[in-house]
Amino acid sequence: MTGISRRAMLASVTSAAFLPTTVPANAAAPLAGKQAPAFYRYKIGDFELTALLDGVRRTKLTASPSRNTPLEAIQAELEKSFLPRDEIFFYFHPALVNTGKKLILIDTGNGPNSIASGTGQLPANLQAAGVDAAAIDTVIISHFHGDHISGLRNADGSLAYPNAEIMVPQAEWNYWMDEGNMSRAADGSPAMNTHRNIRRIFADIAGKLTKYDSGGGKEIQPGIMPIDTSGHTPGHTSFIISSGKDKVCYQADVTSGFAQLYVVNPGWHPGGDMDAAKGEETRRRFYDMLAAERMLVSGYHFTFPSLNYIEKTASGYRLAAAPWNPAL
Amino acid sequence: MTGISRRAMLASVTSAAFLPTTVPANAAAPLAGKQAPAFYRYKIGDFELTALLDGVRRTKLTASPSRNTPLEAIQAELEKSFLPRDEIFFYFHPALVNTGKKLILIDTGNGPNSIASGTGQLPANLQAAGVDAAAIDTVIISHFHGDHISGLRNADGSLAYPNAEIMVPQAEWNYWMDEGNMSRAADGSPAMNTHRNIRRIFADIAGKLTKYDSGGGKEIQPGIMPIDTSGHTPGHTSFIISSGKDKVCYQADVTSGFAQLYVVNPGWHPGGDMDAAKGEETRRRFYDMLAAERMLVSGYHFTFPSLNYIEKTASGYRLAAAPWNPAL
Repeated sequence: MTGISRRAMLASVTSAAFLPTTVPANAAAPLAGKQAPAFYRYKIGDFELTALLDGVRRTKLTASPSRNTPLEAIQAELEKSFLPRDEIFFYFHPALVNTGKKLILIDTGNGPNSIASGTGQLPANLQAAGVDAAAIDTVIISHFHGDHISGLRNADGSLAYPNAEIMVPQAEWNYWMDEGNMSRAADGSPAMNTHRNIRRIFADIAGKLTKYDSGGGKEIQPGIMPIDTSGHTPGHTSFIISSGKDKVCYQADVTSGFAQLYVVNPGWHPGGDMDAAKGEETRRRFYDMLAAERMLVSGYHFTFPSLNYIEKTASGYRLAAAPWNPAL
Repeated sequence: MTGISRRAMLASVTSAAFLPTTVPANAAAPLAGKQAPAFYRYKIGDFELTALLDGVRRTKLTASPSRNTPLEAIQAELEKSFLPRDEIFFYFHPALVNTGKKLILIDTGNGPNSIASGTGQLPANLQAAGVDAAAIDTVIISHFHGDHISGLRNADGSLAYPNAEIMVPQAEWNYWMDEGNMSRAADGSPAMNTHRNIRRIFADIAGKLTKYDSGGGKEIQPGIMPIDTSGHTPGHTSFIISSGKDKVCYQADVTSGFAQLYVVNPGWHPGGDMDAAKGEETRRRFYDMLAAERMLVSGYHFTFPSLNYIEKTASGYRLAAAPWNPAL
């Protein structure tokens, strides 16, 4: 095996010792300069689901994104996963469910004001997937953070899914629409921005929303069972989507931020969790169950295409990516 | 956290207790019934690369695919990875390199005769990526197994990349074109089928091929360094593709079949390795180096989009998937 030497592997490209070609090269092909559309289809029983990427926000890592973990530990974990130490990737994955009778979108991404930061790409990816926004019957919202609701509006303020019933968690509505809660948020704080954004998004449609009970153990659409996973926010909701014997869990933000950090280290508290202790309790209990059930999970903040299994380890959990299926 | 109960998570879909909707549903949207195009672009320095899926061959697992590992051990490993025990997925990933000056395709997939088995999709994925087959300047072949060379021909026998120089490993050519080696292969054996397929593919272009030296430590195209990784076949070649300080390794079949089995267990011998002992030696030495270098690796038989890092573990290696990048 004479050919494999450290030297050959590290040989510099600046060495121009390539063989001359005898065939004339075509005119240089232009670089495409952009990624393939980011949607991924899969079947759950008779349902056809589509994981849709709203984009990625890349953020320089200058402070720890966790409430209780030093930056150095975060960076060591990133490095262990072959990721840059100084930058963090936030992925956003709404999901589309075609039950055969209804077209249901869960969460709506960061919306048109976020395009400069690399997100707000849900409409483009829906279009690439051949889905007409006007054909969507129902939008289900998991919770009221901006990256889940801001895509409900187009840039001109009109509704992005004009024919859709919009379903929101009752507990989330109760918390955020409470003027007392809003009055206690500091001006300019993330909490105040969230309160204001919620009012902007729901301003003239408050009376038309359907409010659902996250903890009632009743499906809110055929095959879509809400699960109360509060902690991240007061009304944060996950869903078990099932058809026949097949199931997938849409976890939303049980782990948020750069989610795999908190999968591997469930005791690390994401900066975005409003009740950090409850968030951790929810995470451990929920993941213990998903691991025991060996259930497929779509994580809003996992890397594309968001589909993984959860494996329990000695110190936390590990994501096992579902293999790409080129045929449905 | 009253909402998360095992009962709720397991609640049957047959419960029709969903809320009635007040908005009339649109006409049912048809299921798309097919997957997104499977190509993935990434930058290595100034080069733009595209990983392209030629498809997946799903095979019922009735006998061990390994020469030295019982079926039960294979099935236990699949189950550990949340995969079916009775079926195995073979992925195929040619790669396109746009250096800015030349368009170079590495390997060509299973070809048009394999479409019924779910492969032969490289031309469709190239088209989805906006690449004209006639614009490809160079095709580099890693080795002569059918899943790497059969895509050189269209269904009518014409050349699929009509303007491309075709580069093949000299050692591979010497072995397979040797009539003595062919005469020693049993009629109807995989080896004989491979000998015959090679003669079919190269029949009238033998004189036009460029034969390269896999172990010479010299680039065969600007930025493309061959590495002798023989064992899988006598002339099997991997490549280090580099531009500026960036590198990616196109490993071809250092692990073949359902490749991650042999990443995790490098001592297991894939059925396709012609010299199993040399294959294992190559695998361990090559992966030790890739792990030490923390080099990105495109595996021909890894799951889409084929890009991983190699992490050394106590008993072998582990794949760490590179995160999806939506922007170039």
